Amino acid sequence: MLHPHSLTAIATLLSLLLYLTFGFQVGRARSKSGIHAPAMSGDPILERALRVQANTLEWLPIYLVSLWLFAIYWGDIAATVLALVWIIGRLLYSRGYMADPGKREMGFMIQAAACAILLFGALGKAFYVLATAGG
Amino acid sequence: MLHPHSLTAIATLLSLLLYLTFGFQVGRARSKSGIHAPAMSGDPILERALRVQANTLEWLPIYLVSLWLFAIYWGDIAATVLALVWIIGRLLYSRGYMADPGKREMGFMIQAAACAILLFGALGKAFYVLATAGG
Amino acid sequence: MLHPHSLTAIATLLSLLLYLTFGFQVGRARSKSGIHAPAMSGDPILERALRVQANTLEWLPIYLVSLWLFAIYWGDIAATVLALVWIIGRLLYSRGYMADPGKREMGFMIQAAACAILLFGALGKAFYVLATAGG
Repeated sequence: MLHPHSLTAIATLLSLLLYLTFGFQVGRARSKSGIHAPAMSGDPILERALRVQANTLEWLPIYLVSLWLFAIYWGDIAATVLALVWIIGRLLYSRGYMADPGKREMGFMIQAAACAILLFGALGKAFYVLATAGG
Repeated sequence: MLHPHSLTAIATLLSLLLYLTFGFQVGRARSKSGIHAPAMSGDPILERALRVQANTLEWLPIYLVSLWLFAIYWGDIAATVLALVWIIGRLLYSRGYMADPGKREMGFMIQAAACAILLFGALGKAFYVLATAGG
Repeated sequence: MLHPHSLTAIATLLSLLLYLTFGFQVGRARSKSGIHAPAMSGDPILERALRVQANTLEWLPIYLVSLWLFAIYWGDIAATVLALVWIIGRLLYSRGYMADPGKREMGFMIQAAACAILLFGALGKAFYVLATAGG
């Protein structure tokens, strides 16, 4: 059994744990506001918590798939560093958004930058490998 | 060509088929209620069908990514058993929720427990591998 | 380092880029309509842009996971051809839906057909491998 990407695996699972806490945040906002599922609106804090979770879910396929292709093409450590940047960005995004929707920008830009480097880094290397080695 | 995870692959694809049926359930609820996309509310059965699909989608990244990391670290059979537990939990969740939102708890807890074992099982083994083999 | 699926990797990353543009489309619809997050309704163009993004997200786990299992079982080139069909279908779906919700059917059916071939193709081969090689 080979485990050439243990660090990327750990960073991935920690990212999923962070995402799980965004789900718990929705649950807490539901309890406080008394608005039960399937209702999705009616309280500003609940709506923010739902948007934090939904926006993170929207970016998860980009992040997770690009992260693993990047890890294959650029190695375990570079991928893990960018995963940690994504985690920090998402933490700031959630804290900012819950405090004030106008304060979500910085964390959002950090996670988006990490995703862009992962996606374009993997894409560039994949084209390079294809061009130099014939696939 | 190596196929060391054929069972996990089959369980994954069956999970995706189940998730597809939750999309068809939304389509049937739309037909019955006469509420066309992009409208997302206005009928309790449609709203429940949408929540079954949306909640399953919310958990799919956690489930699918943890399942495969678990399969790599713990083997094909253990991963497949937990995938079957997840499938049963999601089936009960959907049937319960469509009958009555208050009846969604048991199925939800079963799939959440399967996800927790997959996630923490993979995370624990990844840390163990890193500590004992240096990555 | 082996890269037996460079083409599938490129097609995957291009699919994610297309999905990213559906997010930008939501941003443009928000600017034009002046409806800021977390509000999710109130303008027909914004609601269509949100549905294009949400429906694509709903299908991404089916598409991406089936695509890679198909690539492993059927090879890089067949998977890439189907990924390009999916991309064309999603482009038509988005353009059609933004023009008129009734015009989203053809693109939707094309991407759904690509996903069905990927999913059932991978599932069939996984069962075949299991039956003939014992896993």
